[in-house]
Amino acid sequence: MGHSPFFNAHHSPVGAFATLTFGCKGSRGGLASELKGPADEAFYVGLEEARRPGMYQCLPFFDGHDAAASIADYDVEGLSDHQHPPAVFHFPDSEVKRSLGLATDVWTAGDLTMTVYTPVRPLPDPDVAEPRDLRFATMPALIVDLEVDNSTCDRPRKVFLGYSGADKTRNMHAWSSSDGYDFIAQGTRTAMATRYPDAYSGVGFQPEAVLNPRYQENLDFVLGNTGLVVCTVPPETKQTIRFAVAFFEAGQATTGLEAKYAYARHFSNIEDVLAYALHHADRIVNDCRALDQRVRTHLGDVRANALAHAVKSYYGSTQLLMGESDEGRWCQWVVNEGEYRMMNTFDLTVDQLFFELALNPWTVRNVLDLFVSQYSYVDEVRSPDSDTLYPGGLAFCHDMGVANHFSWPGRSGYEQAGLRGVFSFMSCEELVNWTLCACLYTSHTRDIDWLKKNRETFGQVVTSLANRDNPDPTKRNGVMGFDSSRCQGGAEITTYDSLDKSLGQARNNLYLAVKTWAAYALVEEHLRTLGDTVLADLAKSQAKLCAQTIAASANEDGFLPAVIGEGNDALLIPAIEGLVFPYMAGRRELISPDGPYGDLRRTLECHFDLVMASGKCRFEDGGWRLSSTSRNSWLSKIYLCQFVAETILGKPQDTRADRAHWAWLMDEDNAYYAWSDQMLAGKAHGSRYYPRGVTAALWLAQGDSPLGAMREALVGKDSSRAVVL
Amino acid sequence: MGHSPFFNAHHSPVGAFATLTFGCKGSRGGLASELKGPADEAFYVGLEEARRPGMYQCLPFFDGHDAAASIADYDVEGLSDHQHPPAVFHFPDSEVKRSLGLATDVWTAGDLTMTVYTPVRPLPDPDVAEPRDLRFATMPALIVDLEVDNSTCDRPRKVFLGYSGADKTRNMHAWSSSDGYDFIAQGTRTAMATRYPDAYSGVGFQPEAVLNPRYQENLDFVLGNTGLVVCTVPPETKQTIRFAVAFFEAGQATTGLEAKYAYARHFSNIEDVLAYALHHADRIVNDCRALDQRVRTHLGDVRANALAHAVKSYYGSTQLLMGESDEGRWCQWVVNEGEYRMMNTFDLTVDQLFFELALNPWTVRNVLDLFVSQYSYVDEVRSPDSDTLYPGGLAFCHDMGVANHFSWPGRSGYEQAGLRGVFSFMSCEELVNWTLCACLYTSHTRDIDWLKKNRETFGQVVTSLANRDNPDPTKRNGVMGFDSSRCQGGAEITTYDSLDKSLGQARNNLYLAVKTWAAYALVEEHLRTLGDTVLADLAKSQAKLCAQTIAASANEDGFLPAVIGEGNDALLIPAIEGLVFPYMAGRRELISPDGPYGDLRRTLECHFDLVMASGKCRFEDGGWRLSSTSRNSWLSKIYLCQFVAETILGKPQDTRADRAHWAWLMDEDNAYYAWSDQMLAGKAHGSRYYPRGVTAALWLAQGDSPLGAMREALVGKDSSRAVVL
Repeated sequence: MGHSPFFNAHHSPVGAFATLTFGCKGSRGGLASELKGPADEAFYVGLEEARRPGMYQCLPFFDGHDAAASIADYDVEGLSDHQHPPAVFHFPDSEVKRSLGLATDVWTAGDLTMTVYTPVRPLPDPDVAEPRDLRFATMPALIVDLEVDNSTCDRPRKVFLGYSGADKTRNMHAWSSSDGYDFIAQGTRTAMATRYPDAYSGVGFQPEAVLNPRYQENLDFVLGNTGLVVCTVPPETKQTIRFAVAFFEAGQATTGLEAKYAYARHFSNIEDVLAYALHHADRIVNDCRALDQRVRTHLGDVRANALAHAVKSYYGSTQLLMGESDEGRWCQWVVNEGEYRMMNTFDLTVDQLFFELALNPWTVRNVLDLFVSQYSYVDEVRSPDSDTLYPGGLAFCHDMGVANHFSWPGRSGYEQAGLRGVFSFMSCEELVNWTLCACLYTSHTRDIDWLKKNRETFGQVVTSLANRDNPDPTKRNGVMGFDSSRCQGGAEITTYDSLDKSLGQARNNLYLAVKTWAAYALVEEHLRTLGDTVLADLAKSQAKLCAQTIAASANEDGFLPAVIGEGNDALLIPAIEGLVFPYMAGRRELISPDGPYGDLRRTLECHFDLVMASGKCRFEDGGWRLSSTSRNSWLSKIYLCQFVAETILGKPQDTRADRAHWAWLMDEDNAYYAWSDQMLAGKAHGSRYYPRGVTAALWLAQGDSPLGAMREALVGKDSSRAVVL
Repeated sequence: MGHSPFFNAHHSPVGAFATLTFGCKGSRGGLASELKGPADEAFYVGLEEARRPGMYQCLPFFDGHDAAASIADYDVEGLSDHQHPPAVFHFPDSEVKRSLGLATDVWTAGDLTMTVYTPVRPLPDPDVAEPRDLRFATMPALIVDLEVDNSTCDRPRKVFLGYSGADKTRNMHAWSSSDGYDFIAQGTRTAMATRYPDAYSGVGFQPEAVLNPRYQENLDFVLGNTGLVVCTVPPETKQTIRFAVAFFEAGQATTGLEAKYAYARHFSNIEDVLAYALHHADRIVNDCRALDQRVRTHLGDVRANALAHAVKSYYGSTQLLMGESDEGRWCQWVVNEGEYRMMNTFDLTVDQLFFELALNPWTVRNVLDLFVSQYSYVDEVRSPDSDTLYPGGLAFCHDMGVANHFSWPGRSGYEQAGLRGVFSFMSCEELVNWTLCACLYTSHTRDIDWLKKNRETFGQVVTSLANRDNPDPTKRNGVMGFDSSRCQGGAEITTYDSLDKSLGQARNNLYLAVKTWAAYALVEEHLRTLGDTVLADLAKSQAKLCAQTIAASANEDGFLPAVIGEGNDALLIPAIEGLVFPYMAGRRELISPDGPYGDLRRTLECHFDLVMASGKCRFEDGGWRLSSTSRNSWLSKIYLCQFVAETILGKPQDTRADRAHWAWLMDEDNAYYAWSDQMLAGKAHGSRYYPRGVTAALWLAQGDSPLGAMREALVGKDSSRAVVL
């Protein structure tokens, strides 16, 4: 890759909000659930040296372990002869190679190759799927293969996997089962196991105590916090030793709305998960290898790396929950917002939409339904220059809560009254986002039943959007002009919350205006299907007004202002974001230069060409700067805009920018946080350890059926089933 | 007290392995379960200023809160106007007064008085008690009263309780219930509530956001991690506002042996616990006040403080578990070993024995039973100068596991083969400890059924003890001379593991020899009750031999050597420890100068007088040095030896030493760890945050029925029920 291999990446099952994070040197990764960042524990992957029996080389995912410090807590006078001499070292950096795939992460050093398999595959709809399929799909485990080439060595060599758990409440322990498994675990929540015949496991203050035990009886030294599963490879052989790594949280996972992890219905405990994972490992491994091959062929190395890194971070934030109500069992799909852990942040949902529509459209429906039933509200609106309140309408919360707490109905975790910047309301943006998600879900799945069930909501969103333009129909221009009463005199913001006014302010914002146009233009069709002619006409007329307002705002050179009519002359790339929705909805006539909105399309393309040609929307390294007035750029949005530019506007792929964007993630200061979104001139200062980068999957969306193409690239032709609604 | 009030103390329900720790200045305490030390979170207790509305004074249990740092994670460009100006300050140190009671902790500052109530009361035997009584006794909650004197102020004032939870996985949240409660919680595991009518609760980045909200709607800012319950006291009134603080862990609590917390059977969730605690608060508060009064009358301030501090730390380490097996439901009493969290460390059990016999003798039986069924083994023995192995016999493990992991049957968490110091085996000491605990349990409760059930074990321990003296009956001298084969050539140690050979080595150790004598002397009676005449005779003859060996080892001045016959001339206070067991068993003839062991008794008294007179067993501050050759002293053992010296040997109370021992705990470096045991020249370097100090309860054991006197002092005459076996 040209970059150091030592960057953290998530390795996560789907829906477990759990991760084996590793890649950085030192104790800066490890196994964890529900955290906002890496667990900072030691992760051990090592092999006995061929020439020095009893000495070991490891991938460098741990700091020099100071057993003496742990022992000193007990042995206050330093009388013990307990400590083992150091025998576990890092491989030299130069010997370590890494290849990051979408479903694999392959490390080689010396005679050792480690591959971690994290499948990308459809998640069946829990409302209709067979328990057997759900058990397989929700399995909270990963497969790790250690391949040892001992063919030229005439001695047996030990190879091992392990960790020093960071959970402060429960200690590590090790055990063997009567059916041939060797385990290590911390409490009931994280564990590793193998079924390799010549294996054992143990716990101690230092890895040496388990690798070179003075007495077999000393292997269960559970005062120590380092656990290893150790296997012995015979002389003059090559062996692949398979491990599983698992996570388990059996109890109440969330407050506000009480729920457990869905997998807890299908597995009794972590031992059950590990045995199941090892039993089904071949299927997982084969799927992962095939997927990697396909994606790399499609994308080339730099983009394949970016997509792989982003999808891994996405899965680390995903959570499939299950609860019980009077009406029976319910499931909820949640994507946690990386380091912020806000639940189903709507302005992320709308970007992650494409990936989910391709793989699991039911999750989109599931999230939209909870927004309607729990996380919506009806407000009033006001003009910035008056205190008078007018009818607003339906709006949606920014999120559903934070860190496993569902906030109260009608309230997000994030939004606060009385503000004009970060933490203010995103009423209009989230309203637009519901509309876009709902339209794309309906277009893609043709789920007419769901459309009909939501007849009222589809109508309400158009009325509400129009009122946020202007409560007086005669004064409307299609663009948001009124703020929600929830702001209490403050001002609404957009998803670009910590950017300056050019993208941060919602009212008259160019980025939001184009998305609003897309929402109006797309919802019209569904309202007609529902027979709501009056509202369909309103949507159509608003779409027209909005397109006209945007097109008319271009200055004489063709630049569009970031904030329409407010004298903000920042140059914005995300002006073109909204074009993605008609395209993915299959409504290409809406974005055709010759179509009904040809003027808008041409204006946006001209604007885009100008801002890119101006150089003001680039950093020195060639990376894209979303707003000319801010050094804060969002990688997820860049990926999306790249797709629009290349696939919709027909611009060539900007490979220099691709390399720059990848270099941002590889930056020494950023590498700890796995995939991060917000970059201040290439440094991750916020939105770290983040899920939103799956917009990169758009790069796989080509041809007449872009979501179908994305799905096929991800899960293959053969394994692709009928879309489960 | 003459010392700073700012030292951490536990405030814990019984059996929940949970604590509200506070007292140190700064964010160095807080609510936690299952930790090895304080949670290091902010704990807020404050009152609005009388003269400056909107400004608040607090007890100083938090660091200056840096809301800006939290906000900056979201607001990477610093655009937000969200932060509140500082309005929450510490009371000046000089205004803060504290009175630590056994069941209360009272803090006053300005117009605010806080009292935290932590009852000390019998815990009914779960095998026979009514569910209603168990619900009350296992309730995982505390009561906190905030008394506000607003009588001279003509404005309402806010008063509040809260915390910033340190759990990394779940966020804080706040809510009100329809029946008038206001709550804050972190996840499902820690929470606070009041039912004061004029109250509200909220969450934010900083306490100011909840105390002075700009908009009521902003009170649920669950991105923040500070939660407060806020009450308003009317003008010109005095009010006492009652809060409950609760802990809850619903799921699997332990591995190895799978169990939950016993309280989880009686409460459905933390909200249930809080409501119940507030409903029953009057009873708790009245009990606590009466208890404090009684104990202070008995002991005087310095010892009352020490006992209060020790009992609070003890309860913080206690755990009542419940599991299910094929034979039905079982309960297990566990005392975790402070910062080490080893479970039921047997050499602590034997010291905590007196406190438990007075309050809950069933816990002693319960622990002894699990040692017999799971944590015992049969070994061989060897002499230090030969590799030949001889039959040993039954022995017991050092502990039952670590940090909620029960180790495998027959294995402790602590013991390792091949060592001669810390982490080596304590086979003989734990065998003696089982014998002493079993004898005292039987004598105190007259539980003949249990004695009969354990007929075989009572016999085995005598045979095993004798074999550890010498497998050849003709060569026995009553004192341990052979090490367990489990040591694999290493040497057994004693509970004084990190002290030098004078107390650390088990073989020929004076401290262990006197305890061994007590074990032989006491078990004889029970073996006769069981009709095991042969073994009773063996016990008697071994007791005689042991007493003779000890007495004969005195040098010409009357000093007893620390290690008999090995040329170790250290002077030991704990030579007298073993005298406590015959005394508490009601067998005063065994320790009478005129009784069958009068020679031993006189020798030990002479030795004690000499070592104390020599000055070599004192530190410069007058505190007791257990061994003249080590600067490492154990407070729990000092308390025990003080009891033996005063009550059995009739020495005057050493009040200068009492003050020195209290000063050790109050030392600025030690104050963070609540009650600690091991002191290196007055500094806590190990055994911190520790339960063993309840040996101080022996100070309450006076008269003909010392355990009865202890019980009466603790729980009162009226509330004392029949002893529940």
